[in-house]
Amino acid sequence: KRSYTITLLPGDGIGPEVISVAKDVLLLSGSIEGIKYEFHEKLLGGAALDATGVPLPDETLSVAKESDAVLLGAIGGYKWDKNEKHLKPETGLLQLRAGLKVFANLRPATVFPQLVDASTLKREVAEGVDLMVIRELTGGIYFGKPRGFGTNENGEETGYNTEIYAAHEIDRIARFAFEVARKRGRKLCSVDKANVLEASMFWRKRVLALAQEYPDIELSHMYVDNAAMQLIRNPKQFDTIVTNNIFGDILSDEASMITGSIGMLPSASLGDSGPGLFEPIHGSAPDIAGQDKANPFATVLSAAMLLRYGLGEEKAAERIEKAVLDTLNRGFRTADIYSSGTKLVGCKQLGEEILKSV
Amino acid sequence: KRSYTITLLPGDGIGPEVISVAKDVLLLSGSIEGIKYEFHEKLLGGAALDATGVPLPDETLSVAKESDAVLLGAIGGYKWDKNEKHLKPETGLLQLRAGLKVFANLRPATVFPQLVDASTLKREVAEGVDLMVIRELTGGIYFGKPRGFGTNENGEETGYNTEIYAAHEIDRIARFAFEVARKRGRKLCSVDKANVLEASMFWRKRVLALAQEYPDIELSHMYVDNAAMQLIRNPKQFDTIVTNNIFGDILSDEASMITGSIGMLPSASLGDSGPGLFEPIHGSAPDIAGQDKANPFATVLSAAMLLRYGLGEEKAAERIEKAVLDTLNRGFRTADIYSSGTKLVGCKQLGEEILKSV
Ligand SMILES: CC(C)[C@H](C(=O)O)[C@@H](O)C(=O)O
Ligand SMILES: CC(C)[C@H](C(=O)O)[C@@H](O)C(=O)O
Repeated sequence: KRSYTITLLPGDGIGPEVISVAKDVLLLSGSIEGIKYEFHEKLLGGAALDATGVPLPDETLSVAKESDAVLLGAIGGYKWDKNEKHLKPETGLLQLRAGLKVFANLRPATVFPQLVDASTLKREVAEGVDLMVIRELTGGIYFGKPRGFGTNENGEETGYNTEIYAAHEIDRIARFAFEVARKRGRKLCSVDKANVLEASMFWRKRVLALAQEYPDIELSHMYVDNAAMQLIRNPKQFDTIVTNNIFGDILSDEASMITGSIGMLPSASLGDSGPGLFEPIHGSAPDIAGQDKANPFATVLSAAMLLRYGLGEEKAAERIEKAVLDTLNRGFRTADIYSSGTKLVGCKQLGEEILKSV
Repeated sequence: KRSYTITLLPGDGIGPEVISVAKDVLLLSGSIEGIKYEFHEKLLGGAALDATGVPLPDETLSVAKESDAVLLGAIGGYKWDKNEKHLKPETGLLQLRAGLKVFANLRPATVFPQLVDASTLKREVAEGVDLMVIRELTGGIYFGKPRGFGTNENGEETGYNTEIYAAHEIDRIARFAFEVARKRGRKLCSVDKANVLEASMFWRKRVLALAQEYPDIELSHMYVDNAAMQLIRNPKQFDTIVTNNIFGDILSDEASMITGSIGMLPSASLGDSGPGLFEPIHGSAPDIAGQDKANPFATVLSAAMLLRYGLGEEKAAERIEKAVLDTLNRGFRTADIYSSGTKLVGCKQLGEEILKSV
């Protein structure tokens, strides 16, 4: 029997509810596929702040580093919104990403045929959208130095950050993206702002140089403002997108909203070695936390990504993905994706229905 | 008779075609409203590069500075895409913005009832959208220093830029935005990434402090990734948006695409004093340049903004806006906004129809 150690980070808001469902789904699918799990549940974000005073306790990071994969619910909430930077839940997440060295963030935006009407885009525009945003996750303006607050030559207060990329940071994410594109539609669009920013000019130069090694991939370049438009005008033109940390933050959220059902979308963050970090792209939704209203599909699909990209357990991943589709086909929906004619259920009951389909 | 000097910058691609129409519309509406114009046509962008070797000749800037307002067509094209930074058409535009000190960029995103079906968003989502993005235009990462290419402590090549805002830069754009919101729906949404970036934390702090002076304006704050989603989910929730240079670049383009007809959207860039810069938000469209296919509406509406915000000639501005609506109602369309049952015309003929409606 294959055996893996998984760190569970329920986090805040609806995090614990969706993680609980995903854990059950992992256990059941594992028992069928001959996979054993040891789960370690640890604190992150607001939950960690309340309990320990820091958003990423050392213990959480060291346990996560030693495990085979990390599954995260969601972090953040109004309660901690006014905290100073080093005491924000978000800072814990950024420290976790940096600590695990997961530089490649994969964010699929897939329109489920069963949910196409949930998109605010016209059916003919949304139908069949299946794109992957690959976001650089441990560099750029999120981590660049110098950063902080200062005084300029006129004695005026300032706030500043540094967008910076070194050659190897661009090369490894670009290489990663070329490889993913090769397994998908062999089309890669690199998004930058090379008409204005030196950091982007350098990005484009490195991506272009690497393209020599991937003659089978159709590479294009797009300015970020145009990409924000094209995602709305015709999202089906995209197959795989690669971009920097901040542009990826914006464009992957935009792309996910195009599907109309962000409660369905998982993500994976991977490094060169060591455990990957898997999480739904939705947030902690404090408004509905603890009310059994959360949609656990995205976290369950994140568990499938964990199996595929984190553990190489393709069959178990597919089993979970089929169970999700089957549950959708049987008409079960949480409130966020409900439409008339389908069956409205809570988070727990949806979890039970997914288990029936596993 | 009131008399004004206008600098015309046709620029590249379809620029000359749309500027020619807007000039005729200004002249005719001016003759009715008792306004006289002296036009100075100057070089900018690729056209300037080809003729003078620089994208913003000194003469263009000095003539522009001395005029009452500047009307720009569009700049850029494949021909100059590979140029070094200081020889890019875009650099000329950035130098012009900086030279005119136009720190406030107003970008309305309005869905015209006649064109609502051109949006890829569902009718009920797009209908009635009328929002204004106010983008900081002369600061932030576009102009921040240090910037360039370097070598890091590992001897590796890097590319870098600085996102920086000083107190007065934030205060003046925020004040501007509060004033605009006051004339609109009294709702202002400030977009930042204050959960990660110090530059954004400082931005939010200054905006919050200024809010004391505008108790009648409902102020909210939104993270840029969420804003990119909310624009698609429910654009009607927004009235006035204020944000930094790079986020504004991305979000204003996204917002404009939501309307489905970027060929209709004007923009204004204003400073504390001196001439404003007015331009359509669409680009130079090199593919259709010189073919009489361009849509001149956005430039004509930019001329209306020039009258309203640049010269304080509200009546003449309204006359032009009414002429545009009337021409739309009479069914005239260029190819980009054509739908069956309407009359397809070229740029020139559309110009003549607008003149009939002035
Ligand atoms: C919570 C926040 C720090 C984070 C980010 O900006 O990376 C989130 O928006 C995301 O995309 O995962
Ligand atoms: C052409 C380019 C430099 C410019 C910008 O990024 O500001 C354009 O995208 C715009 O929004 O006016």
